[in-house]
Amino acid sequence: MSRTPWNTVAIIGVGLIGGSIGLALRERKLARRVVGIGRRAASLRKAKQLGTVSETTLRIERGVADADLVVVATPIDQIVDYVREAATAARQGTLITDAGSTKATIVASLDGQLSDGVRFVGSHPLAGSEKSGPAAAAADLFVGRVVVVTPCKTTPAGAAEAVADFWSALGATAFMMSPEEHDAALASTSHLPHLVASLLAGATPRDNLPLTATGWQDTTRIAAGDADLWTQILLDNRRNVLNSLARFEKTMQTARRAIERGDAKTLRRLLSEAKAVRDAVGS
Amino acid sequence: MSRTPWNTVAIIGVGLIGGSIGLALRERKLARRVVGIGRRAASLRKAKQLGTVSETTLRIERGVADADLVVVATPIDQIVDYVREAATAARQGTLITDAGSTKATIVASLDGQLSDGVRFVGSHPLAGSEKSGPAAAAADLFVGRVVVVTPCKTTPAGAAEAVADFWSALGATAFMMSPEEHDAALASTSHLPHLVASLLAGATPRDNLPLTATGWQDTTRIAAGDADLWTQILLDNRRNVLNSLARFEKTMQTARRAIERGDAKTLRRLLSEAKAVRDAVGS
Repeated sequence: MSRTPWNTVAIIGVGLIGGSIGLALRERKLARRVVGIGRRAASLRKAKQLGTVSETTLRIERGVADADLVVVATPIDQIVDYVREAATAARQGTLITDAGSTKATIVASLDGQLSDGVRFVGSHPLAGSEKSGPAAAAADLFVGRVVVVTPCKTTPAGAAEAVADFWSALGATAFMMSPEEHDAALASTSHLPHLVASLLAGATPRDNLPLTATGWQDTTRIAAGDADLWTQILLDNRRNVLNSLARFEKTMQTARRAIERGDAKTLRRLLSEAKAVRDAVGS
Repeated sequence: MSRTPWNTVAIIGVGLIGGSIGLALRERKLARRVVGIGRRAASLRKAKQLGTVSETTLRIERGVADADLVVVATPIDQIVDYVREAATAARQGTLITDAGSTKATIVASLDGQLSDGVRFVGSHPLAGSEKSGPAAAAADLFVGRVVVVTPCKTTPAGAAEAVADFWSALGATAFMMSPEEHDAALASTSHLPHLVASLLAGATPRDNLPLTATGWQDTTRIAAGDADLWTQILLDNRRNVLNSLARFEKTMQTARRAIERGDAKTLRRLLSEAKAVRDAVGS
């Protein structure tokens, strides 16, 4: 995996993900300049103080002007607009990627829409947290994590590889798949778990909360995530989320019937299969 | 909370919970002798090597003969029989408790059944783990944790308090409630979360497992628990588990309809309520 030396990297959105990219780039000396771009002066000031970026600007056209690489790390409902703005202001040859949790809608909205000479490839670093904001940023957030890079049919040769090299340089392992494959898989591995964890927390009678222990705490941890962000993700990927939910509801119905009938054999089989899956993943 | 000095404590079942009780008693010098009782010589040898007990025996009548306190820390389907055996062999005044995850069936099966002069009060330390066995035992397993002590109408005066003092001496906070209240609450805070975590792990398509990250890992962690133990728990407490499951299914149906209709407002409300609950519990 080659380490790409960047001259100027512009990061739009300096929260957990954007800030961690900046910290990693600076700590690993992978970019000469890391420009933080945002809409709120206070967030940018905070990001600069924390050392996640080397300079900041509220003006996107200024921020991306000299960039070799632009990373859009905003909530998913803003990504398409920011990529368009960045593409308009960027010079020839600039590579643009994002860090959104869904890919099909974003990639389809941008496919064939950008000016020649500016290349966009979608990304999704699987490195979230229930925390958010610049203060939660960490230089090692991507180390050992998976980043999915999602080229489509019209992606220029070499662009997806360059984006994959960028994430590899931050310590991640890059997987390539189509935006549609990504969204189908992440519905099961991330979006449905978030929904289920939240509904479980919400369905716990308040009087019983003093009787929660590590099991409840682990199972519901991600319910502390941002409600707006997750509403966007679940609705953007609704078709796949509904498919995953249907699969989950089906196994839940089997379990409910087994409990109703006192059918230990079926229940034990469901729990044993689940244990085998969980043991295979580890940690 | 007074620290009760015990002469001899007998522990039936020297796995995670029994072993941790032994380690805590010995490290805190709360008992002169800690006798480990079990059915398998290999487990007892392991427990002795690890220092979780000071002596061991395969013969329950010998193990409990001099005990002031007997703790039955076996899978729940064996607890009633072991308490009966221990009560038969124990001397007058011996206090017996257990560490089972369900309480109503166990307490009802023993209520009024034991010989005079032997006192039984149920307990449930909320200090499980997806790990099991003597090697997983830890002296601090109960520190800062909640233990529910479940007296019933016929519990002799002072017995529940003595059991609560025992758990307090190990570093836990003891709550008193009836066996029925315990089972209703734990269905929501422990048994349903276990079932949901397991079903979620089991419903994840195997091909997608490389795309799991910390969210999936946290949410499904307890699915690695022992399938036999959890089958027993879910069936023993089936009425309450089904009630909790029905509440969960109802909120899930609301969420599904909101996703189907693209109803961001309802979805955001569900996720926000869940976040408030989760934030209130912390860690």
